[in-house]
Amino acid sequence: MFKAAYFGELGAYSEQAAVQHFGDSARLKPCKFLQEVLESADSDSEFGVVPIENSIEGAVTQTYDLLLDSKLSIVGEEIVKISHCLMAAKRVKLSQIRFVYSHPQALGQCRTFLERNKFDSIPFYDTAGSAKMLKAKQLKNAAAIASERAAKVYGMKILARNIQSNKRNYTRFLIISKDIASSSADKTTIVFSAKNTPGSLFKSLNAFADNKVNLLYIQSRPILGTPWEYNFYVDCDGSIKDHNVKKAIRDLYDASEFVKVLGSYKRARFGKHV
Amino acid sequence: MFKAAYFGELGAYSEQAAVQHFGDSARLKPCKFLQEVLESADSDSEFGVVPIENSIEGAVTQTYDLLLDSKLSIVGEEIVKISHCLMAAKRVKLSQIRFVYSHPQALGQCRTFLERNKFDSIPFYDTAGSAKMLKAKQLKNAAAIASERAAKVYGMKILARNIQSNKRNYTRFLIISKDIASSSADKTTIVFSAKNTPGSLFKSLNAFADNKVNLLYIQSRPILGTPWEYNFYVDCDGSIKDHNVKKAIRDLYDASEFVKVLGSYKRARFGKHV
Repeated sequence: MFKAAYFGELGAYSEQAAVQHFGDSARLKPCKFLQEVLESADSDSEFGVVPIENSIEGAVTQTYDLLLDSKLSIVGEEIVKISHCLMAAKRVKLSQIRFVYSHPQALGQCRTFLERNKFDSIPFYDTAGSAKMLKAKQLKNAAAIASERAAKVYGMKILARNIQSNKRNYTRFLIISKDIASSSADKTTIVFSAKNTPGSLFKSLNAFADNKVNLLYIQSRPILGTPWEYNFYVDCDGSIKDHNVKKAIRDLYDASEFVKVLGSYKRARFGKHV
Repeated sequence: MFKAAYFGELGAYSEQAAVQHFGDSARLKPCKFLQEVLESADSDSEFGVVPIENSIEGAVTQTYDLLLDSKLSIVGEEIVKISHCLMAAKRVKLSQIRFVYSHPQALGQCRTFLERNKFDSIPFYDTAGSAKMLKAKQLKNAAAIASERAAKVYGMKILARNIQSNKRNYTRFLIISKDIASSSADKTTIVFSAKNTPGSLFKSLNAFADNKVNLLYIQSRPILGTPWEYNFYVDCDGSIKDHNVKKAIRDLYDASEFVKVLGSYKRARFGKHV
């Protein structure tokens, strides 16, 4: 049994989030696909670690869509500072580089650096995975964008550090599990869809205001098969064990077409690890 | 002077949106980058046509980010039914195909088809652009995903039609211009950021409810440089010339950190062109 499954290869930012949460000695399992993390957290791992939001690129929409259909709950979160490095196989020089492989979000975050150097961007499924692939293929004209940890794991040479355009770059990760809320939860994530009538979105949101539950975040996602109807993902203050949150959820059920509580958990303190 | 600039090559879905809006005889200008459409609409074109939302993939976040910093207004919208075709150079057979080029959103929408056929996906900047590139290079082992119109424009052979997983696939486009609201506007788009105090998001949203302005949609985007703070893009019923919308915007100014009206326009009737 693994302690946690995480998204990406050895050296991925998700692995760093897992280490922050479970410690250095936890037995961790890398997963190539987000869906695989959820499957593992339901079978051979106690927990899963998935990216949910980057402070520059925004929501990881695929994670939201997967949580909607999953029986797993959100039981924690971690914030990781993203510091991208350009790396290549030993002996490769910066002047030889023509192609740069990485996850599309990482390429986006380093757009200015890539354009200035006239590198061609090649999207890859994972940041650390691109470092692993370059190492295996020993490409001479290509580099990867990944974490310093990935460079160490795969024995790559770092050609440039901290190359992202915006230096205040953080990714928020969710810890998911078959278990339910921890006792110290102070944040709750709920997904709902409004009824298909005028004013219904506001009536749903009113469930929070009427019960003095503070909204932290709203993210909308299209509902598959019904164009221009949406699921709204809401983060709010408090635990589902709190009286006012319980009452808000009851009111939300009355006002909405569909409601699902994704989990109550302890909020990551911004700046704790940065 | 062009009537309108649109995103993508000849045969792009944005071109179809432009033709729906301005007619077959309008002089149109293709643009490789979204930013270029905005620049053209400010100089050598009367209007710009940009994708804002797909009914499956969700928001085109880059368009939201560009509108935030632009002096252009939204003056209209169009909905286009998306029907993806797999196409290759004449004489190429389906059995020869190994690689499939297209825009990442189109690749995502055809994921099931691509996986079933064990094709490797290669992200490209544009759907029609990938057809144009294959035509120019006469690749024998590659196909593109684009519209039937693109196949016709570039003389490509259609190998498979309607290959997207979800058949109810639509993209909404915005018409942007230096001009302001049309007289028949019945929809308004506003961006705001909440104050950095508890309950502030709800107070901002309350500006709409207090004035009986119906919310149609909310989309959040991170504010660059200030992690975990957001701009909220709101679509609501009514024109900025309506008394209650005017009043809601005044209240929103009082309750929020930042407010910008992006435009009032006539809503695209869903089903009009589908």
